This record gives sequence, structure tokens and C-alpha cells, in this order.
Amino acid sequence: MKAAYYHGDRKIELGDCRVQPPGPDEVRIDVAYCGVCGTDLHIYLGHMDQRIAFPQVIGHEMSGTIAEVGSRVQDWQVGDPVVVRPLDSCGTCPACRGGHAHICQNLNFLGIDTPGAFQGAWTVPAHTLHRLPAALPLDRAALIEPLAVACHDVRMGQVQAGEEVVVIGGGPIGILVALVARHAGGRVLVCEVNPFRRELAAALGLDVVDPQTTDLVALVEERSGGAGADVVFEVSGSAPGAELMTQLPRTRGRIVVVAIFAQPPQVDLFRFFWRELKLCGVRVYEPEDYDAAIRLVESAALPLERLITQRQPLDELQGVFRQMEEGADIMKVLIDTRGD
Amino acid sequence: MKAAYYHGDRKIELGDCRVQPPGPDEVRIDVAYCGVCGTDLHIYLGHMDQRIAFPQVIGHEMSGTIAEVGSRVQDWQVGDPVVVRPLDSCGTCPACRGGHAHICQNLNFLGIDTPGAFQGAWTVPAHTLHRLPAALPLDRAALIEPLAVACHDVRMGQVQAGEEVVVIGGGPIGILVALVARHAGGRVLVCEVNPFRRELAAALGLDVVDPQTTDLVALVEERSGGAGADVVFEVSGSAPGAELMTQLPRTRGRIVVVAIFAQPPQVDLFRFFWRELKLCGVRVYEPEDYDAAIRLVESAALPLERLITQRQPLDELQGVFRQMEEGADIMKVLIDTRGD
Repeated sequence: MKAAYYHGDRKIELGDCRVQPPGPDEVRIDVAYCGVCGTDLHIYLGHMDQRIAFPQVIGHEMSGTIAEVGSRVQDWQVGDPVVVRPLDSCGTCPACRGGHAHICQNLNFLGIDTPGAFQGAWTVPAHTLHRLPAALPLDRAALIEPLAVACHDVRMGQVQAGEEVVVIGGGPIGILVALVARHAGGRVLVCEVNPFRRELAAALGLDVVDPQTTDLVALVEERSGGAGADVVFEVSGSAPGAELMTQLPRTRGRIVVVAIFAQPPQVDLFRFFWRELKLCGVRVYEPEDYDAAIRLVESAALPLERLITQRQPLDELQGVFRQMEEGADIMKVLIDTRGD
Repeated sequence: MKAAYYHGDRKIELGDCRVQPPGPDEVRIDVAYCGVCGTDLHIYLGHMDQRIAFPQVIGHEMSGTIAEVGSRVQDWQVGDPVVVRPLDSCGTCPACRGGHAHICQNLNFLGIDTPGAFQGAWTVPAHTLHRLPAALPLDRAALIEPLAVACHDVRMGQVQAGEEVVVIGGGPIGILVALVARHAGGRVLVCEVNPFRRELAAALGLDVVDPQTTDLVALVEERSGGAGADVVFEVSGSAPGAELMTQLPRTRGRIVVVAIFAQPPQVDLFRFFWRELKLCGVRVYEPEDYDAAIRLVESAALPLERLITQRQPLDELQGVFRQMEEGADIMKVLIDTRGD
């Protein structure tokens, strides 16, 4: 079995997988697929080197089957199909004690802070597992992690049926947020500058516009009878996105900041006063979001297959990152970790 | 009876009050006191000239007694002591229809968009009135309007007993927010750069620090056992305040933006992601906030008298604005409109 090791400086090298026997409360998983996340790209680009112990196996959007269980593990058996919710919380910090273990102040994010799933065998704490329905194809199951992000975001945004929803940014997470918000009954409009992403969004049946050629504020006013959007998801992480997000909501409308802003953008706080806007930040997911994502994938209610624009073997991972860095026509790439 | 007219260009002139007979749904009030608000200062400085029809009587933090009632007005009699909630909403815009008339999209703010209370006689719609307890001194009653702002802010911030609260900015509204939050059971810390304001806050029994000499983030961490603040009120309207506000809250903590930011500051949106912070803008008040403020003033639960640092006749209004512009040692100035 192989593993892809990140060595820093945009270098990924294939090597032998260091198969780690599970500790008493762990399981070892035969990884099937692992999707490439925007966070993985950030790691590849060196933005998160301070959190990485080189060489490191990254990756966390995975699916697989249990290969070995630790001595104290109950409820799980060899052969069980699973996904991992890659969060290992401390259990003792104020966030954990406050019931928000997913934003633990000492969080160990598997695949960032400790080894991840771009390898054939992955050993993880049993408490991170979610069971998959037996009939669920493992390639689609690799979309559960990003879909759980979207489920969390839409839940935090409290999207209600009939509400006017705008999603700024139509990358993988933006599209998933749009699909989940539409499934929740929202009237969804996606705003995206990239033509490939717009075409894909349109092919999924989403309303999509280019904010460079469409007056988005006027369009949202028109769609909402002059009120403005009920909920705006900012998923672009861009300064223009941060500007747009405050111009669109109705009085007491909600803004959900999904994107990770490395630099603090200017934000029109006057608009928060003027319309009593609300904003919330959202981060990863809680167990119920994984449950919701698994149900959604199982129900085939969303056209998730269309998001998978490439499937590649593990030794192509570096090439995939290169394509992503160059802005190639990519939505979601799955790495098949089972080769060799 | 006299009125103070704003002519633009920092000019306030005393003139005769144009006593206006009430329309069928209006009342005429003999104004007793009118406090000078930060918004009045903004008007005096010319920042809001586009909303003003010159010459304009401004002022809205008032108390008085009814002098005449319109033909269709019921429930109100000559001699009733009242305060005015100076909001006249359109009733038909999406905000009004959505139950948020106080942030009406076509709001007429009495004392800004139409004449205000820096005059002996003021004619207003009867629906803006709140009844005062008979025994309540009218000078203290002139604090009800800014206190209603604070009641609204603390209600929107959902301050609970035992919560760690930080108020950034110790001007009149910041101090009132701090007092109301403490009354709600919060453990309140005020952060203020001005020594006069800090001394006054301390005299009111509030914990107060200078953020230029105290590491506020470390102090709040210490007060909260490493968790961070439950609620942060940003009342300074400054760039350093906008920076501090995101550094202080605990995971899922709340930020209430009370200040009016004329320029969009940089805001650390990463921090919203990292700790799943929430932010809400707040604007003026709703009727229940006036009711709460009247009950608070009546109960004498808050040391409001101490906030009144000057009482002046109407012809001193221009001088008061000059002092405020120069940053004099002022908290709240009441104008006695009954002279002459």
C-alpha cells in the first residue's frame, strides 16, 4: 500500500504506507477514496506549514472499510463501510465543556495536525467513525465530508422553506451549500466569476450569475420584492465577496461566513446597524451534520455525481494540485487510494 | 417659546418656536428637557446634511407634557407626562411588513428627517407617545430615549445572568449598555481610552480599563477562565474597537455592533470562522425597549443621575456642541427647553 507524503515547498512524493496497528480505542481503515479539498491545496501551497510535521500524509474527505479494530472498540467490525469525521477534540477546554467540541480550542484535525487519508491504510480513533449504508458506493461516500460542511452551514444559517438565498462563490463548498439550501426549500441564487463553475452550477439546475456582468444587488431586490435576501453565504473568501455580502440581505437578514479569510477585509459595519443584520462564522461540522449528509447521499436527492470532475490514482496527487493552482476546470477530484 | 434652529455649517440660532397645532392624530407637547445625543453632534458637524431641510430643529431625547390633543386622539389628555419614541414608520415596506417597523426602509426619524425637540412646543404623531409615571422627574425622563437604545442592545445581545460582558467604548451609550447589561446579571468590563469617562464609569461601580495600558485580551481570558467573553458590545466606532471586538469572544460568542461606522473598518473574518462567532447590528429600539427603559428609570435601579454632567438653557446649545467637538469632559448634557 502507498501513501502520498507532503514535504513542503509544493512537493508531494509517493512512498510506502506506514501501516499503523490500531491502539485500544482505534480502528485501521482501508481507505477507498479521498477527495482533494481546498484546505489540502492551502497546505500544498505552504500556507499552513506551521501546523504540519514533515513529511506528512494529508487528506480527510475519505471513505473506506474497517480493516482492524482495537481491543476496546465495540460496535465496529472488520468490513464495516465508514467515513471519518476527522476531528479529535480535547474534551476539557472551554469550547468542549460548552458543548462545541468541533471548535475545540486544542483541536487535532486529522489530515492536518496528524496524518490523513491520502494513503491505503489509515488508523483513527473509533469515536470519529460514521457508519455507511451497505449499498452506498464508496466514491459518492467520499463527498460526505464536504457535504457535511454544507449541511452545517445551512443549519447555522437557519434556511427556511421559501427563503431567498444567495451563495457568493460557486466552488465545491459553495455549490454544495447551494444544493443543500435548495433542498431545505430556499430559492437559491449562486454568484460566481468563473465560467466553468457557472456552467456546472447551471447544469445542476441552479440559478447562477456572474457578478461582473449582472447587478447582483438589483437582481436580489427584484427577486425579493424589494426586501433583500434572507440569507447570504459568503464562500468566495474575496474582498468583493465581503463587500457584496452586506449589500444583499434584507432587514434582520443573515450572513453566513463560510470562507476562510486569511486577511481581514473591509466590512461595511454601517450596514449591520442600518438593517440590523446578523453574521455568523461557521467551521466544519458536528455529528448531526454528518448524519444529515449521509442521509442525503443515501437518498440520492442531490446531483452529487456531477461534482466529481476527475478520478485519479494516488501518484497523480501532485499533478492535481498543480492543476488546481493553475485554475484548471476542476470541481471535485477524487483520489483512488486503493491502487498498488 | 423658543426653538434652536440648525442652519448647517456648525451654526445653531435661537428663534421663536413655530407652534404647530396638532393634526387629527397628533399631539402638541410642551417639551421640558431634551438631551444632546451623539447623533445631534454628527448633524451639527454637517455629517448628515443630506437628510436635513434647513433651517431645522433637531433633538429627540426628550420629556414633556401634553399641551393639546388632535381631534381623533384617544387615550391621551392635556397634562399627561410623556416621552416620544421618535420613529414614524411607513407601515408598507418589507421591513414594516416583516414586523421590524423600527428599521423601516422609509423611516422618518423625528428630530432628523422632520423637526425635533430642541424647542418649547413639539407636535408629533400620537402613536409615538409613551406614558410616564406621574411622579417621575422630567429631567431623569429625558434619559429614557438613550436608555431604550441600551435596553434594545442588551436584549439583542441576549445577555444572561453570569455572562462575561465587555463594552468597548464608555461614552453615554456605552455606559448605559454597561449598566443595563450589569442589571441583567452580566459581569461587565468597560474599555475606554478617555480618562474622564473612565473615572465616571468607575464612580458608577463599573469595572473599567484603558486598552492602551491594559492587555484587554489577556484580562478577558483571565476573567473567563480561558474561554473569552460571552458578549462584546462595540460602541466606540473606532478601527481599534473593530479589531478588539473579534479578539475577545469565546467560541460561539456574540458581538453586538452598536456604534455607527461611517467608514468600513477591517474586520477579522477568520476569527468568525475559527470560533464560530456571531455578530449582529442594532438600531434604535422597539416599543418594548421603551417600556423597559421607563420601568428602569422609575425603579431607580441604575445610577442615571450621575450621567448628567451639565444642564443648560436652549441658547447654550451651540456652546455645548462646541464643547463636545473639543472633547470636553462631558457625559450627558440636558437642555432645559422651558426657559423664555
